[in-house]
Amino acid sequence: MAITTKATKPKIVALAGGVGGAKLAAGLQAALPPGSLTVIVNTGDDFEHWGLNICPDLDTVLYNLADMHNPEMGWGRRDERWTVLDEVERFGGENWFRIGDRDLALHLRRTEWLRMGLSLTEVIDRLRRMLGIPSTILPMCNEPVRTLVHTEEGDLPFQHYFVRRRCEPALIDLSFVGADSATLSPEVRKALQSADLIVFCPSNPYVSIDPILSVPGLRGMVRQSSAPRIAVSPIVGGQALKGPAAKMMRELGEVSSPLTVVDHLGDVLDGFVLDRADAVLADAVILHALVTGTVMTDLPSKERLAQEVLAFGATLRQSSIPAD
Amino acid sequence: MAITTKATKPKIVALAGGVGGAKLAAGLQAALPPGSLTVIVNTGDDFEHWGLNICPDLDTVLYNLADMHNPEMGWGRRDERWTVLDEVERFGGENWFRIGDRDLALHLRRTEWLRMGLSLTEVIDRLRRMLGIPSTILPMCNEPVRTLVHTEEGDLPFQHYFVRRRCEPALIDLSFVGADSATLSPEVRKALQSADLIVFCPSNPYVSIDPILSVPGLRGMVRQSSAPRIAVSPIVGGQALKGPAAKMMRELGEVSSPLTVVDHLGDVLDGFVLDRADAVLADAVILHALVTGTVMTDLPSKERLAQEVLAFGATLRQSSIPAD
Repeated sequence: MAITTKATKPKIVALAGGVGGAKLAAGLQAALPPGSLTVIVNTGDDFEHWGLNICPDLDTVLYNLADMHNPEMGWGRRDERWTVLDEVERFGGENWFRIGDRDLALHLRRTEWLRMGLSLTEVIDRLRRMLGIPSTILPMCNEPVRTLVHTEEGDLPFQHYFVRRRCEPALIDLSFVGADSATLSPEVRKALQSADLIVFCPSNPYVSIDPILSVPGLRGMVRQSSAPRIAVSPIVGGQALKGPAAKMMRELGEVSSPLTVVDHLGDVLDGFVLDRADAVLADAVILHALVTGTVMTDLPSKERLAQEVLAFGATLRQSSIPAD
Repeated sequence: MAITTKATKPKIVALAGGVGGAKLAAGLQAALPPGSLTVIVNTGDDFEHWGLNICPDLDTVLYNLADMHNPEMGWGRRDERWTVLDEVERFGGENWFRIGDRDLALHLRRTEWLRMGLSLTEVIDRLRRMLGIPSTILPMCNEPVRTLVHTEEGDLPFQHYFVRRRCEPALIDLSFVGADSATLSPEVRKALQSADLIVFCPSNPYVSIDPILSVPGLRGMVRQSSAPRIAVSPIVGGQALKGPAAKMMRELGEVSSPLTVVDHLGDVLDGFVLDRADAVLADAVILHALVTGTVMTDLPSKERLAQEVLAFGATLRQSSIPAD
């Protein structure tokens, strides 16, 4: 009987939002033995649309880990079609959130399962198994937590801010409605307890990572974990590669810099990965720092970054082992 | 100011199920001034599928009156696509009821509106206006009434019998679950009260017409109406042109003949329209009878039959006027 040891099958936990997070998660999955990776995903973006339960970040992770994602759009399915959307428009339906025909099938199945009484964790596990994904994908919690964006034009539900208004209204603050009533799921708890390394993917710190950390008990588990905790910067050369992170930083009165991410998340991190474009900032990082190429354009570049992150994690683990 | 008189704008009420009913309804709409036609449609076929509210007969009538129907399939939309169905199958969803991409958009909108609290009557009126249909389309009632098929293999919900099992299990009896709690909607009541002619479309008497007549008060209003009431036979030459009517008749111990329809519905009828193939039976009809071509293959043949039915109705109205 073969015995799988921790040494042969490390337990890696990644925290992820949408596109950037899903890219590094795909790299980690490619770099690790099957079953080693657990991705804990932001659900603050979730909302109801067309009467269906939509989970944009979970779906981006699912599609990326199943290699079904649309690399041009960054979200949604490859070879997507838009027949239903065109017809929903004809019947006066909302069209600002573009649901493709292939993508829609997943929303229909999820909505049906949730109405049947399955938890979101169970639903996502069914979907990832059907898609042949070897990694575990966990919503940050089963209860609804909804990111509400306080802007100079008033409060906006996240997707209305992000998609409908294209992040135009200036940001004042964010809140995660429902977080107080959320609980750590047994699956998230177990994943964090047994983690050998915790990776904060290059996701927006305010609207992807913060909602995850808002689940009561989750930040504490990460902080108290004996595993090294590493973040990959979502800011490269002062810009976000995708999404509004840099714009948000400026509107919040911060500099759009990797150092702002370190300031924001530093108390739960041991190490930080910066892009070569920001190499000059490495000395200013108050954590262990790794400088490398962080821009992921294809699977080899995702896997290469993942391997470097894993190796960086291994050095932090060794450095934290007290000498006999 | 122009005054519309009854003479210039007759009020025609048609009772219809799916394909055959929708064909004659399209003919009547083409033959009449806009706004003259009200179609009261069977909802006993309605069911929930993929978490959506599906109304097959209402949709067939909507699509036919908007000239968006698929003439080859008899149901659904023209130029239909099946991307979502293929993907739902991938995620283990049910595929025996084939929902096309275009068709799906209507189910999504209807389901959303019903969940918002609109009545089915309001939902269908919104849809028919959006599709530019000049006729009124009314569900037989707003409450759910569900046709349950008692077969030699047990009880089956209608769509499971009709689509999933292709009407194979032998029929013992039918019941219309929920009919006891249904009520005449104000719209159906008003349409029947002001009708100048009531037409029973060539729809299955057991599973299309009977559910409509099962709505408490509806049969009585038809029976007491002063308007002529005419049925067009759904049986031609011993066969149903579409659907299981003839098979059902045989399984119920009846002869598959237009006369069986007359027996079944005779107490609410004044006149009956038979196909030329059944001309020899005309003398056996205990009602006023019209023999003509009843097979509708294109819009001109639908309109021609409609005009003959309207003229037949006019003769019955004249013959019922007592001489001074």
